[in-house]
Amino acid sequence: MRVAFLGLGSMGRAIAAKLLRADHNVVVWNRSAGPIEALCSAGATVAPSPTGLFDGDAVISMLSDDVAVRAVVMQEGFLPREGARAVHVNMATVSPGLTRELKAIHDTCGVSYVSAPVFGRAEIAAAGRLHILAAGPASAIDKVQPLFDAMGQRTWRLGEDPAQASIVKIAGNFIVSCAIEAISEAVALVRGNGVIASDFVEILTGTIFDTPIFRTYGRLVAAQDFVPAGFRLALGLKDVRLMLSAGDASAVPLPFASVLRDVFLEAVAAGDAELDWSAVSRVAARRAGLHSDVLDKKTVVSS
Amino acid sequence: MRVAFLGLGSMGRAIAAKLLRADHNVVVWNRSAGPIEALCSAGATVAPSPTGLFDGDAVISMLSDDVAVRAVVMQEGFLPREGARAVHVNMATVSPGLTRELKAIHDTCGVSYVSAPVFGRAEIAAAGRLHILAAGPASAIDKVQPLFDAMGQRTWRLGEDPAQASIVKIAGNFIVSCAIEAISEAVALVRGNGVIASDFVEILTGTIFDTPIFRTYGRLVAAQDFVPAGFRLALGLKDVRLMLSAGDASAVPLPFASVLRDVFLEAVAAGDAELDWSAVSRVAARRAGLHSDVLDKKTVVSS
Amino acid sequence: MRVAFLGLGSMGRAIAAKLLRADHNVVVWNRSAGPIEALCSAGATVAPSPTGLFDGDAVISMLSDDVAVRAVVMQEGFLPREGARAVHVNMATVSPGLTRELKAIHDTCGVSYVSAPVFGRAEIAAAGRLHILAAGPASAIDKVQPLFDAMGQRTWRLGEDPAQASIVKIAGNFIVSCAIEAISEAVALVRGNGVIASDFVEILTGTIFDTPIFRTYGRLVAAQDFVPAGFRLALGLKDVRLMLSAGDASAVPLPFASVLRDVFLEAVAAGDAELDWSAVSRVAARRAGLHSDVLDKKTVVSS
Amino acid sequence: MRVAFLGLGSMGRAIAAKLLRADHNVVVWNRSAGPIEALCSAGATVAPSPTGLFDGDAVISMLSDDVAVRAVVMQEGFLPREGARAVHVNMATVSPGLTRELKAIHDTCGVSYVSAPVFGRAEIAAAGRLHILAAGPASAIDKVQPLFDAMGQRTWRLGEDPAQASIVKIAGNFIVSCAIEAISEAVALVRGNGVIASDFVEILTGTIFDTPIFRTYGRLVAAQDFVPAGFRLALGLKDVRLMLSAGDASAVPLPFASVLRDVFLEAVAAGDAELDWSAVSRVAARRAGLHSDVLDKKTVVSS
Repeated sequence: MRVAFLGLGSMGRAIAAKLLRADHNVVVWNRSAGPIEALCSAGATVAPSPTGLFDGDAVISMLSDDVAVRAVVMQEGFLPREGARAVHVNMATVSPGLTRELKAIHDTCGVSYVSAPVFGRAEIAAAGRLHILAAGPASAIDKVQPLFDAMGQRTWRLGEDPAQASIVKIAGNFIVSCAIEAISEAVALVRGNGVIASDFVEILTGTIFDTPIFRTYGRLVAAQDFVPAGFRLALGLKDVRLMLSAGDASAVPLPFASVLRDVFLEAVAAGDAELDWSAVSRVAARRAGLHSDVLDKKTVVSS
Repeated sequence: MRVAFLGLGSMGRAIAAKLLRADHNVVVWNRSAGPIEALCSAGATVAPSPTGLFDGDAVISMLSDDVAVRAVVMQEGFLPREGARAVHVNMATVSPGLTRELKAIHDTCGVSYVSAPVFGRAEIAAAGRLHILAAGPASAIDKVQPLFDAMGQRTWRLGEDPAQASIVKIAGNFIVSCAIEAISEAVALVRGNGVIASDFVEILTGTIFDTPIFRTYGRLVAAQDFVPAGFRLALGLKDVRLMLSAGDASAVPLPFASVLRDVFLEAVAAGDAELDWSAVSRVAARRAGLHSDVLDKKTVVSS
Repeated sequence: MRVAFLGLGSMGRAIAAKLLRADHNVVVWNRSAGPIEALCSAGATVAPSPTGLFDGDAVISMLSDDVAVRAVVMQEGFLPREGARAVHVNMATVSPGLTRELKAIHDTCGVSYVSAPVFGRAEIAAAGRLHILAAGPASAIDKVQPLFDAMGQRTWRLGEDPAQASIVKIAGNFIVSCAIEAISEAVALVRGNGVIASDFVEILTGTIFDTPIFRTYGRLVAAQDFVPAGFRLALGLKDVRLMLSAGDASAVPLPFASVLRDVFLEAVAAGDAELDWSAVSRVAARRAGLHSDVLDKKTVVSS
Repeated sequence: MRVAFLGLGSMGRAIAAKLLRADHNVVVWNRSAGPIEALCSAGATVAPSPTGLFDGDAVISMLSDDVAVRAVVMQEGFLPREGARAVHVNMATVSPGLTRELKAIHDTCGVSYVSAPVFGRAEIAAAGRLHILAAGPASAIDKVQPLFDAMGQRTWRLGEDPAQASIVKIAGNFIVSCAIEAISEAVALVRGNGVIASDFVEILTGTIFDTPIFRTYGRLVAAQDFVPAGFRLALGLKDVRLMLSAGDASAVPLPFASVLRDVFLEAVAAGDAELDWSAVSRVAARRAGLHSDVLDKKTVVSS
């Protein structure tokens, strides 16, 4: 298929590379030139601007946030005036509100709009193991399904309303944030009572929480291993904001999300925005007067 | 080994039965007579009172809370005055504060005290698959290890200080409560935006949260299946109180635990104390004005 | 002085009337025609549109929120291209972010911009007893001081940066919201323990909280007297959002504001958006399982 | 009247001195000897122990907390076995739960029990300006009214149930704590946006919060003037605990009290337990990354 691809951050690069490897014809555009070269040597061609890309089968955008998506999509010339065969697949995590706006604008232009955020980080994308949450016109999703098959292990079809894919993505990310905060508070409590953090995490993940998310974040929190960031704390705060704003728009109180907001802001105020988002655990430790730079040796044994 | 066993709630019964099946010699005592009969027909003998039980190899207590433990252990005649060969293994989830008190009293009497709370519900105990968190004198734990082997899949040895086993157990339960609340808020948000709860849970547990705890509680929350209670909401509140009181005693702020406290109290005020603790999800739904009695049909498909 | 006045809600009407009574020359504009007539019979003239108003001494705008202000100010023709003698005095409570944007735009056009939100409700404005929080160029504030003198009891000059007046106004409103929530929780507690709400409020305001805000809101909460709204709950939520967004922009965690957000959203979900904002007290009562429609007879006596 | 007085902390001393000045006959007892001497030179006599004090008209106790009250009242010999003419007036702020226990024990012994906590700090007591919240048998309150008249400006009679006086006192203190936290968050926000703290407080207390509590705590927070403590932060935490425990016992969720708990614990973890309780404002400042040791010069002017 002929695909135009916008947004070559770590996720976008990995996905575009999978499409090329699956022999799709990929035209790329990105605000900075760096990421483009590697993809060109893998067979991509370059678009000079993000306008006029709708003459292939699909336009895929993987931009960083509401502001970036709005800037690109709403600029003159991005959407064709007379409709297009190409489906626009937006894979960014954006607000349900913006998703609704985008759907309306695409409807006006006669372009099919599919919201398709994903679960999985860059290394998962590189392995073609993403979970894709797709919502939009069934025929449009059918059409781009070969692209989804090239990049993900599974596509979850959530119906015709693109906003619902955004909501599910945001709510899923929220639960991950909650897991990190829960681990952080629990670790602060056990450390404040003389238990070694890594012992506690080993017990947790060896018993009731034997699962990748708890293994990953438990280890990062216990080892205080926040650099390089797998997912930046500043982006974690962005996702908390999306959750709160979705709750606000639909009158759903979210007390855990409210706590997360204040914890993430405190981490940003402490200068940790560029660390891995598991660094929010430093907030719970600092509040309890624990010196977060002390690492202790593991002592637990099990039989 | 010769074992005296106190506290025949659902957990105590299951554990005592495993000990009998492993050919240990078990004397039981319980406040109500009912549970005793079944164990007697399985080979247990009956103690007329909880006093004078320390002439065997171990006394195991599995009572419901601080108040019950305090009432039994501190009564005249429970602890021998002249020391004893028998180790006291307390498997209840009690506060670190009470644990420290109990250790001091046992030290005075010359009795070894082991704190050994467990991860696992009654059906896990019946299968001999508990995880046991043991802390106390190493020689005492060595001595009762055959009993732990009969009832659990693994024993985690947490050192000499019995309070540390209590802390780890309380912190682990806290993370489970957080998972339930996180699911509840996420479900309220997606429902408030038109997504079917069971679809959302299916996606979550099919992707990033493919783990027993999220499968179990996700299903209960989506299906609003709160009777019979696997674990009563009132006991969940008890555990939240233990978490907060441990945080208070060690000056560790716990904002998620504070949110949980208010959510559990609201559930109790609404009359849901005897439901399964996943019924706290009704709080998030009600706050959002969602009718929690409406169940929707699943619609998501994946490929 | 010659003044153009935009925004004739209850506050705008009261202020414009005071200016007329002080013999200022007032041109009014409003989206709906209703409020205009009364002011015309008091001597105002009518502008056909909000463009081209900068040929007098001042333009005063008292619009409802960021969206309304943005819509009027940023439309073609509102701001003169070649600068103007008239000062723009924005009396609305808007976000510091929008205030900074507006200042920049006015600077570009060569128009002096003064931010001047007020403390006081419509009846206070009608009495000319407002407190005015003014920030902007000193010479511009000097120029419009006669207008402030006509409408308020006191002008507080907060320096050159208009955003600081917005911040102080937002932070002040936040403290009022906190007082309402504190009263609401306290009343729920005492009612849950058999104390009559109005007795409690009488004691509070007869002892340590003998102050108008506690008298006003204590009475409304105890009497559950929410109609007509002195200040609509929906506007209270707007102010909480302004507080949170100001905190977000400057990395200041605000846990009380986060609680307020969830309480106000719950009130909106319950259908109370158009009641007086003291109706958030119904949230605390409902969470505690108290029937908020039961009013009790006062019983306390003092000597 | 003949009065026995127990508990000579700063409040107790001031009240006992007022009783002596009003020519009552006062016997004092205290755990430490220091405060006794000054009162003896003012005419008091000394009791050798807190037992056997019920042969006069009243026994007044002003002890620090639940633990101290329990220790004194429940010791052998404090309450007479055969009833007594003397009324026991407990002026300490204790939990409603303990109050109910105490009432039951006094009933058994045939002694009248009046709960009479007060609003007012030591300097208010010294001026005889306390507000007294009295609940208990009407005849018993009638009897001790001359004592209340000697120490307070007003007695608020709350009916026959002593627990209700405790509840009202606890709920009142809670609102004061909320005011301090609200000021603290507002000050953090305005400081984070370049507004001088003392300017903000001057505006607040010159406009909508012109009241002693806001003047006092606004000044302390802005000036960071926490030594000596007018009321110790550790005691503030004690009161927050009483509020939460009263809410727990009656199933009343209290989200503001939950926030206060975590803020006070964080202050204690930071080593501020012995400062004035307005030092909890350092928590909001630190979370926002503000250096709380920088004091700024006032700049606001008003006209």
